[in-house]
Amino acid sequence: MNYMKNALKYKGTDSEWDKLVRKFICSETQADREKLFEYMQQILFGLQEFLKEHVGVTEAIDLKKLALSYLDTNLSEAPQKRLTQVISEIMDEIAPHAVNVSSPYFVGHMTAAIPSFMVILKAVVAALNQNVVKLETSKVVSVIERQIVAKLHRLVYDFDEKFYLDNVQSVDTTLGCFTEGGTSANMTALWAARNNTFAPKKDFEGVEKEGLFKAYQAYGVERAVVLVSQRGHYSLSKAGGVLGLGNNNIVSVASDCDGTVLISDLKDKINRFSNDSTAKIIAVVGVAGTTETGHIDPLSEMAEICKHENIHFHVDAAWGGPTLTSEKYSHMLKGIELADSVTIDGHKQFYMPMTCGMVFFKDPSYMDAVAYYANYIIRKGSVDLGIKSLSGSKEANSLILHGAFELLGKRGYGLLIDHGIELAAEFAEEIRKRENFQLVTSPKLNILTYRYCPTKTKHELLSTSGDERTKIQNKINDVNINIQRIQREQGKSFVSRTALKRKEDSEKIVVLRAVLMNPLTNIEILREVLDEQEMIYQKHCKGTI
Amino acid sequence: MNYMKNALKYKGTDSEWDKLVRKFICSETQADREKLFEYMQQILFGLQEFLKEHVGVTEAIDLKKLALSYLDTNLSEAPQKRLTQVISEIMDEIAPHAVNVSSPYFVGHMTAAIPSFMVILKAVVAALNQNVVKLETSKVVSVIERQIVAKLHRLVYDFDEKFYLDNVQSVDTTLGCFTEGGTSANMTALWAARNNTFAPKKDFEGVEKEGLFKAYQAYGVERAVVLVSQRGHYSLSKAGGVLGLGNNNIVSVASDCDGTVLISDLKDKINRFSNDSTAKIIAVVGVAGTTETGHIDPLSEMAEICKHENIHFHVDAAWGGPTLTSEKYSHMLKGIELADSVTIDGHKQFYMPMTCGMVFFKDPSYMDAVAYYANYIIRKGSVDLGIKSLSGSKEANSLILHGAFELLGKRGYGLLIDHGIELAAEFAEEIRKRENFQLVTSPKLNILTYRYCPTKTKHELLSTSGDERTKIQNKINDVNINIQRIQREQGKSFVSRTALKRKEDSEKIVVLRAVLMNPLTNIEILREVLDEQEMIYQKHCKGTI
Repeated sequence: MNYMKNALKYKGTDSEWDKLVRKFICSETQADREKLFEYMQQILFGLQEFLKEHVGVTEAIDLKKLALSYLDTNLSEAPQKRLTQVISEIMDEIAPHAVNVSSPYFVGHMTAAIPSFMVILKAVVAALNQNVVKLETSKVVSVIERQIVAKLHRLVYDFDEKFYLDNVQSVDTTLGCFTEGGTSANMTALWAARNNTFAPKKDFEGVEKEGLFKAYQAYGVERAVVLVSQRGHYSLSKAGGVLGLGNNNIVSVASDCDGTVLISDLKDKINRFSNDSTAKIIAVVGVAGTTETGHIDPLSEMAEICKHENIHFHVDAAWGGPTLTSEKYSHMLKGIELADSVTIDGHKQFYMPMTCGMVFFKDPSYMDAVAYYANYIIRKGSVDLGIKSLSGSKEANSLILHGAFELLGKRGYGLLIDHGIELAAEFAEEIRKRENFQLVTSPKLNILTYRYCPTKTKHELLSTSGDERTKIQNKINDVNINIQRIQREQGKSFVSRTALKRKEDSEKIVVLRAVLMNPLTNIEILREVLDEQEMIYQKHCKGTI
Repeated sequence: MNYMKNALKYKGTDSEWDKLVRKFICSETQADREKLFEYMQQILFGLQEFLKEHVGVTEAIDLKKLALSYLDTNLSEAPQKRLTQVISEIMDEIAPHAVNVSSPYFVGHMTAAIPSFMVILKAVVAALNQNVVKLETSKVVSVIERQIVAKLHRLVYDFDEKFYLDNVQSVDTTLGCFTEGGTSANMTALWAARNNTFAPKKDFEGVEKEGLFKAYQAYGVERAVVLVSQRGHYSLSKAGGVLGLGNNNIVSVASDCDGTVLISDLKDKINRFSNDSTAKIIAVVGVAGTTETGHIDPLSEMAEICKHENIHFHVDAAWGGPTLTSEKYSHMLKGIELADSVTIDGHKQFYMPMTCGMVFFKDPSYMDAVAYYANYIIRKGSVDLGIKSLSGSKEANSLILHGAFELLGKRGYGLLIDHGIELAAEFAEEIRKRENFQLVTSPKLNILTYRYCPTKTKHELLSTSGDERTKIQNKINDVNINIQRIQREQGKSFVSRTALKRKEDSEKIVVLRAVLMNPLTNIEILREVLDEQEMIYQKHCKGTI
């Protein structure tokens, strides 16, 4: 390569520069390359060795002690390590103290094992280093991104072939976009809804240009609200804060005991704000797969009400969206096709590496309200994907999802979904069978919550009320906090914990939460998780309840 | 691995399931693995083959034709390809139509070659799949992220050792955070500034909770503005829109002919808004490395004025920030240490893969105004990095930067900066020497703009005015638009184009823009770029000016 030789010639006498330039091409000796290959083999084709040695969330060194190794805040002048050393540091020193999210015993969060090919695809995307903010730094990749967005849009909305042919590669319309994650996807949806609510009109240039204060004045209101299930993700409240609406105007709609929106309360609240001439409803948000319990709001009913009232209906399907790939269970999301916008996360049930979100809009012109243009980038009438996007520069995550669908097919994703849902049902059965455990929320998708609560205590709860009952609940809470902590520290298994308010309780109760997305997790493993919790109670908490 | 066998046993009769589960571990045959390794060798250790065949922004197939191959919007039910096929499709079909941003002849955008080790680090980060939103899915990685944030904070602010020891691993304070990119970094800074401006006070819970309308009422104002150089990045205007302030309230400060803020105009505007009891200034933004010309605002003067007026001073150093690593040129950013917040992009001059931004705050408590908590995640008093962050789930980009500094040292980055700045000066000299070219903005950092404009035409411009002059300028604009387009389509080299308003012109003029960050780019290559432009003029545009 001629220019490489030139590059080296240019500052040929400066050997430090030569070394630096080589790092852009390939800085390694043959021996180093072989060593690196060994590591990369582990990394690219599954972390078998790593998995074998470090199962679960190990806490061999506690965090405070660990933090002591990371206090130096001086940037070293000279290079300190070769690449093989950096990688071996990560593999040998950092990885063992990271969290092994790919263990089948790690069933506590929405982060889990990803197929090994995802890592390879991520590396390819990094090597190509395209920036999909504009065509000039991405070209065909922007076209592929539009295609995969359209494919997912079709999975959700299933419009006819003509609709998709008209829109898939149109420079004028937008079916949705990739985002950093679910938070920015929800934020994008509410941003667009806010701007369409306070659209330009006579003597008013629109909220994006003039700001919220002027918008409220132009529309004669003092308040703009978003109605969300009380089980909605905190990112919706955050979006309200960021967008200037205020968290207080992200209004909670009560949920019934299974955790989904109470239609009666939704209707009441819509009525209240519709009859208040000083208020405007920007959107109603339904959740398809709540973060804490995996429940699904009554989407069809909510959509119908919103249609009738002419309110933007957003569905946060960050978690549950991929259920649409399942032949057996896609019906659970019935009504999502009526939503005006939908959030789906790629790094959750599409098993992509951190992080990838997406948002889709039923109306291909809806995102016009959030379009930006600039001279040197995102030019009007171009394919530049940065025109309608909360982000600026953006990596080509779309290529990963494109590859993943080629590799797994819709059916492959569907089978993963089926496994999670069926395993959750089986796990719920197992919990019900054990007299020292109590199922708190039955799984609808693949998430369930439960707690340690012996039969004797269950009976006590039934026969007491008021302060006495609260006292018992507090004790049960303490036990469950301890069980979760000790299990985590033992390092074999990990479930998470949260607090939920049930109808029959005056206060939130602490629950253990299992998220079943890893295809390697099975009922034997889950029985071991319960056995360990039982043993922890017997050893550490016995007699406290 | 026992659980793997169990996982397979569990649905042992279902061979489709078995195949699926194997994709989570390693789905490849030995032959496939060898093929994959060949590809991965190219990908991980530099794209030599790819570079050799495809230099520049090839346009062999034009976009509309290309888009015709990506119209199918049906998700295929069954898997369509094996991993080797997917990767070879990317390498053989997609990559040639992507943009070869790593070519040393690609000098048009802020995206360029990255060191090959960056790709390996990105793969490692993907394989670990940590989510730094919370400790339970990242552990030591969150601690490392805090450390590298502190190191960069120190590069900017250089406070004393005690300050950093107190803050580097403190759960109560925050020196800054990683973001998706520069756009979200700027947005985070202005979000925090907005919230600190409209902080809670008697009978008011703060803007984040109550929203902007109530905030303006509580503070008795009708308008809140941010003052930004007219050369500021469009993301600042977007941030104003998103945050509910309105683009119109991101007020342009005039710049002098070299593209930096005119202090007199800044003072005038501050005075005007300070004397207007119905207005509030949220922040003043200085730019360290403007996107179009790479110029740096007079940071020290701006900081002094802001300090005196008690206004938040933000510096957008997305591009220029890494100049601080250069022994020779860090002085050009003098005054940045006085800023209240600073944006620096990782995927620009820290040569990280797409995408990585960062924002730093002088006051470790400043981000308290954007803190969020939730039960199942981001718990109060925890190390959970998601507490103060625009994002939710977030990949561990910090590990890449951590590794990069170990590999290059501060000095390595400094040499890259020096190369770009010195090459830009050399290139400017070369342009000045050529009579058919005109330097429009001299480089301050490593960006310059110029245009094709023969001596004869230069003289004509000097002797005409009004409509006549505009007519000539329009012709020159057309020539430069054509030269840039034809050069891009010829596929050997790429410069970008933008439009700039100079003092002496009534309208914006079209300019060619070179961004010199690739260490493989040298003056011989740049001479070739000019030679080609000269030839394009002679062949395609001769006689039009």
